[in-house]
Parts: sequence; structure tokens; C-alpha cells
Amino acid sequence: MKRVRFRDDAGNVRGGRWTTIDGDPAVTSAADPVGDGSFDDDTYRLDEVEVLPPSHPTKIVCVGLNYRDHAAEQGKSVPDRPMLFLKTPNTIRGHGATVTLPKGKSRVDHEAELAVVIGQRCRNVDRENAEDVIAGFTCMNDLSNRDDQQREQNWVRAKAFDGAAPLGPLIATPDHVPRDATVECRVNGELRQQSSREEFIFSIPELIEEITAYMTLEPGDVISTGTPAGVGPLEDGDRVEITVEGIGTLANDVESA
Amino acid sequence: MKRVRFRDDAGNVRGGRWTTIDGDPAVTSAADPVGDGSFDDDTYRLDEVEVLPPSHPTKIVCVGLNYRDHAAEQGKSVPDRPMLFLKTPNTIRGHGATVTLPKGKSRVDHEAELAVVIGQRCRNVDRENAEDVIAGFTCMNDLSNRDDQQREQNWVRAKAFDGAAPLGPLIATPDHVPRDATVECRVNGELRQQSSREEFIFSIPELIEEITAYMTLEPGDVISTGTPAGVGPLEDGDRVEITVEGIGTLANDVESA
Repeated sequence: MKRVRFRDDAGNVRGGRWTTIDGDPAVTSAADPVGDGSFDDDTYRLDEVEVLPPSHPTKIVCVGLNYRDHAAEQGKSVPDRPMLFLKTPNTIRGHGATVTLPKGKSRVDHEAELAVVIGQRCRNVDRENAEDVIAGFTCMNDLSNRDDQQREQNWVRAKAFDGAAPLGPLIATPDHVPRDATVECRVNGELRQQSSREEFIFSIPELIEEITAYMTLEPGDVISTGTPAGVGPLEDGDRVEITVEGIGTLANDVESA
Repeated sequence: MKRVRFRDDAGNVRGGRWTTIDGDPAVTSAADPVGDGSFDDDTYRLDEVEVLPPSHPTKIVCVGLNYRDHAAEQGKSVPDRPMLFLKTPNTIRGHGATVTLPKGKSRVDHEAELAVVIGQRCRNVDRENAEDVIAGFTCMNDLSNRDDQQREQNWVRAKAFDGAAPLGPLIATPDHVPRDATVECRVNGELRQQSSREEFIFSIPELIEEITAYMTLEPGDVISTGTPAGVGPLEDGDRVEITVEGIGTLANDVESA
């Protein structure tokens, strides 16, 4: 199942499922959608709706340096435990939203990530049981203001500015996402990042065990699993797309302040 | 006005005001409480209710090294802009709650702080207008796991563990809190920290201007303004009290995991 939240043409916020119309992506809130090629009152082409962020996290726990290639690119050694940082609810934007870059910064980078959406309140979860607390996976763009990231101990201005976490377009249950799912970023159609979930330094169950040793996670909370090599700057007018195999593509336009 | 949230003896969550009964602290949800010495159905002695955290922040933005004496104590120079870090909603505990220290850590410190509660959604607030967005002030204990704080870039395990932000007991409107309000911490009755709001390196309006240049703040969000000198470790069985002049005292018992 691929779950989605959207605002319909009458302005109503609805929950539903990702589907297709004539082979094109679409959303439906019909209980039993007819599917490809058929229309009904609760099924919409993507351009007829506003796709909303698929969950309302109380917190996003992010992981730095979780791909061997990105650690090397940043000149960092592989960490001995997950490197964690936080994004706050003000950072979240949906698929299709335009993100305004923070003002007066010389470099704000894209970072393509596979994000885990938590399905139940949990604490002290062993890695063996971690799959029980996963609702599914989505795409995240961990937008990163490098000017401030180099100046501050904790990456608040760098990682928690408004719009710093485009999230979506949907939540795919784990059965949709292969163990070696590709994680990609394109800017204006050009491939910038490409790697695979197999390159993770810490697996998703290991991350859940480590984080929940300290913090209770709530339904809808997000763990973003780090980005592969190839991060790079965004400019006014760019269109940035994050694609994770088995989930889909999160697309956002970028504008300067 | 001093606003409070509490759970009454029937289990109902109620909003109300701080008051007194026979000179002892009490809470009331009466619209026009009779006040000192009088009883009514909506007024309770403190030991009859559970005092709840006075707001539901979506985020707590904390400030490090904002007192000259604490910066010196930590061997740090005075920063040229506010040093920011984050606490997430899982950290919040109310007045009277027992806080479980994170497991297996050799040192978890108290940090007495004056916390600002935001009253309206805001972004890009100039320091001249900052008072317009303040609902009031409360006390916070910025509990700090030093073991991890020394090991991690971003203070997630160090500062965002469950229970790391006791908050309360009430929100006092700014007129209650003098410009030179004292900020104190006592452990088992013994004075450990004592300073004044006049010792801030960055004023509250300066903090609001800097933070809202990056982040939208929501009603109920909290900015915690840093701690003075005298931080020190807590042990199983300790009772820790944070007192800010004009607000009151936030008291919590501490237990090991």
C-alpha cells in the first residue's frame, strides 16, 4: 500500500492511496479504487490536488554520514555509532511545494534520503523487533545550509530552517521497497546522487535501536537515513527531485528569498 | 496573570490560574477565583492535582553559553552570536514529575533556565517588536547528559533524551518577572546556581530576532535562555528545584534507570 494525504479541489484535506489514471500518477480516497484507466469522484490526477506531507512528525531524527561514499566525500572517517541531528516540524514541506532558500547564504545543498515513518509509539526497541514499529518509507530532501553548518556546533540554522525538509510524496509499506533500493537526486533533470540502501553504514533496525534507547518515537515521527555522495548546491529556479526505488519521486522547486 | 494546566482529581485536564489557599500555592479553573483563603469547586491545593507542562511546544530552541559566568566556567569564550540547540517534545515533563536519568551515564547535570513561551505564530521578528510575540515566562531545567555531549557533534543523546526538559510550573506574563529576575537551582534544598537575567549575553528580544530569521515559531513553542554558572551532577533520589523570580519553582525528583 502507498498512503498519501492531499487537499482536494474543494479544499478538503483527505487521506487516501497513490494510484494511476491512464498510467499517470494519481491519488484516490475511494475505499476500493477502481485503478488504472477508471475515474470516480474520489480519484484525482496529481495536478488537480495539493499533495500534503504524508505524516505530521513531532520530530525528524536525521543521520549524518551513513553512506561510505558520502563520508569519504566529506573527508570524514566512518563513525563508530550513528551521527544524529534533528529537524523540527517547521522544516516540513510537501511534494510540489516551492522551497524558499534561507536568505543571504552562499550554499544550500540537496541531500537525497530514504526516510522511515514510525507507525507506533515506541521506546527501547531491539533491532530484532524494529520492523514492528515501521509504518513505511518515504523520500526526504535534507536541505543543508552549509554556511552555518561550518560555523555552529549544533546544526540548527544549518538544518532546521523553514522548508529544510521536503517530505513525500507518499508512505510506501516496506514490501514495496527492495533491500537494495536505489536512492537518487536529480536537479533540473540531471542525475546528481545515486546510491543504494545496501551502502548504509548503519541499517534501519540499528538506527531504531540506537535512537529509541534515548527517545520515545511517536506515530508519524521520521528517521531520515543519511545521504550518499554527490551533494551539491541549489540555485533560484532549480527543480530538485528525490527518487527512492519502490516509493516514487519527491519534486520541489527552489527559489531564493 | 499566571496560567497553569492541570489534571484534576476526576482525571480531567483543565486550564486555569495559579492562586493560593491559606497562603499555600493552589490552582483554579474558576473564571474569577475568589483567591486567598476561600474554597470553591474549581480550586485545588497543589497536592490534589497533577500539574501539567504549561504549554505543548512543537520545539524548544535552547541557547548555550548565554551567561558570562557559565561561559567562563566551561572555559569557553563569549560567542559572537547565540549558540543554539534543540529539544524535542519527548523531553518535556511537568512540575512534580519524576525524571528517569538516561541509563549508564556517569554524569547528568541540572541547568536552571528562564524559558520564554511564544504566544503567536511568527517569523522574521525584529528585536523592537519581539515583546509582541511573548505569551510569558516559565522555568526550565535543561538536563544535560555530559557523557554524550562530549562525544557528539549535535547534542541529541545529550539534550533530547526522554525527560530532559522539565518545564513549568506555570506561565507568568512578562509583567510578573523583573528585568533583573534571579534564576536559581537547588538540589535537595542546597543552592547550586544563582544569577540574574541581567547577566544574559544575548537579550530575549535579540534571541527572538535571531531564531525567527531562520524558523517559524508556533504558539506554545519555547526558547530557553541558557544557564548560569554552577551546573553540576544529579543522582538517584535527588530533588531538583528551579526558581525564577516572579514565576515560581519547578520541582522534580530524579531517579536512575
